[in-house]
Amino acid sequence: MKKFINDPDAVVAESLKGMALAHPELKIDLEHHIVYRAEKKQGKVAIVSGGGSGHEPLHGGFVGKGMLDAAVCGEVFTSPTPDQVAEAIKNVDSGEGVLLLIKNYTGDVMNFEMAGELAAMEDINVESVVINDDVAVEDSSFTAGRRGVGLTVLVEKIVGAAAEEGKSLEELKKLAEDVVANGRSFGVALTSCTVPSVGHPMFDLPEDEIEMGVGIHGEPGRERVKMASAKEISKTVVDAICDDLDFTSGPVIAMVNGMGATPLMELYLLYGEMEQALEARSVKIERSLVGDYITSLDMAGCSLTLLRADEDMLAYWDAPVRTPGLVR
Amino acid sequence: MKKFINDPDAVVAESLKGMALAHPELKIDLEHHIVYRAEKKQGKVAIVSGGGSGHEPLHGGFVGKGMLDAAVCGEVFTSPTPDQVAEAIKNVDSGEGVLLLIKNYTGDVMNFEMAGELAAMEDINVESVVINDDVAVEDSSFTAGRRGVGLTVLVEKIVGAAAEEGKSLEELKKLAEDVVANGRSFGVALTSCTVPSVGHPMFDLPEDEIEMGVGIHGEPGRERVKMASAKEISKTVVDAICDDLDFTSGPVIAMVNGMGATPLMELYLLYGEMEQALEARSVKIERSLVGDYITSLDMAGCSLTLLRADEDMLAYWDAPVRTPGLVR
Repeated sequence: MKKFINDPDAVVAESLKGMALAHPELKIDLEHHIVYRAEKKQGKVAIVSGGGSGHEPLHGGFVGKGMLDAAVCGEVFTSPTPDQVAEAIKNVDSGEGVLLLIKNYTGDVMNFEMAGELAAMEDINVESVVINDDVAVEDSSFTAGRRGVGLTVLVEKIVGAAAEEGKSLEELKKLAEDVVANGRSFGVALTSCTVPSVGHPMFDLPEDEIEMGVGIHGEPGRERVKMASAKEISKTVVDAICDDLDFTSGPVIAMVNGMGATPLMELYLLYGEMEQALEARSVKIERSLVGDYITSLDMAGCSLTLLRADEDMLAYWDAPVRTPGLVR
Repeated sequence: MKKFINDPDAVVAESLKGMALAHPELKIDLEHHIVYRAEKKQGKVAIVSGGGSGHEPLHGGFVGKGMLDAAVCGEVFTSPTPDQVAEAIKNVDSGEGVLLLIKNYTGDVMNFEMAGELAAMEDINVESVVINDDVAVEDSSFTAGRRGVGLTVLVEKIVGAAAEEGKSLEELKKLAEDVVANGRSFGVALTSCTVPSVGHPMFDLPEDEIEMGVGIHGEPGRERVKMASAKEISKTVVDAICDDLDFTSGPVIAMVNGMGATPLMELYLLYGEMEQALEARSVKIERSLVGDYITSLDMAGCSLTLLRADEDMLAYWDAPVRTPGLVR
């Protein structure tokens, strides 16, 4: 394993330390591993997300005006503890309540909801929404039901913009649920990833095979297939998503996401192929995002996320945002 | 080789096609492989850069308000032709002249300068500045003198902002030369990269060795050393740069750049270590940028760029920019 690290067990702490130095617009609690905005915004519902580290820029890179108020960082691919999440909730609440955006992994759901209960005991109004957009498999290594993956970026952006505009906790919860109901994702791995503290790849993938429907922690997908062209892969990905939900009825927001080690050149090429495969199914992309937004350490791979957006969602998507990972 | 491509010889063309679909704010000439702003800005000096592809987001991703007017894309790791560059120059000139920003590779310098001469015959006022910031080696596989690497991003940002403000061709040339004179870079590779049309890694690097001073096309650096900690690597990088130029005298802009396959988590960790190594040498970072800005396809690696900035450069660095690869 070759990585730019010192101690494999200290990567999250040391990475957050560097992030704090690079981003004075953030306030990073290096004891609890929580990323906050440097200036707490009063009079709005606070949006909190988080989960295991290793998916950067998600979630810490999405803290800032127009997106998250706090991101709680677990160890690599490991849920943060209820105490960590409760600490974040207490610090971001300004009396309007807190919305937790949780990716659907058993540990995350359990620990975030437990933290919500702890905060409720201190009279903080907490609601939560679970994101479960991965159409690849029902149930998986760390999940009952569908995994939460790329749609998380879109939920954080859209709900974050609505919160900035002053929407109520109830309205924001409803909006997040609507986005979850209308969004789907599917990922493909060309290679495995290596967790620093483990020191070897999570799984073996032969030089001529790829994993269709891979999870963001390297969880198995639907099947291993022989390496194929970008055009063939794009068609499989688009079919998997569009067979699950009809995207022909209205404007669609599309994200073509890199898993960490895939060159931007390939992501743009995929975007072209996926756009074409979607067009063949009468799906029209209204907005797009191409790049590394929810990664899996050093995995080479990509994912496609589609959201059936209404006018409000499009407007929130376009709204200004100022975070290390997304600026508009 | 596993890559998201169709035909190894068509990756640049197909990637630009996808980029055009994803970015309606750009106008991409798919015949000549030139990325333009969709709306040509009148009454300013036009800034043109380019070079071999495979370094995305550089250069195409830096076209837009506050940065480049056009980027000319060669094949992977291959200079664009004089005709391509001349085509770009003709299309961006609005009568105020054109400044060419050229990374110091023999092919790029020759072809951009030849294009400048072609354009001059059509009475376009063209100047050029060669960027040669890599302290690792004198002369290299494709270069006489020092290679042009990460500083290119800073030159494009700073000179782009000054051009947007209406500075003259002469002033912009002087500014670019000042940035070049005051900037230095050094890169490290953990792995090689694979050019699609070649199909195998550019060089072999044993599992326990790294290349100190690597070039952005995988050119050899100063030496191969045993894998070391992020702290040790950071000190070597900082020493290489600071032994070449004194950075203690004023504010410094620092970029910690990923080569393509290095997780953001590791880049932030490196930023923390490099900041500390710089502090130990009394160098103070005033502004920073951490992420993938000038890549080498799927190489795992990083580079550090430092610029001794004056007040003007800092102001241009902070100025608004709207490009796919950098927004402020």
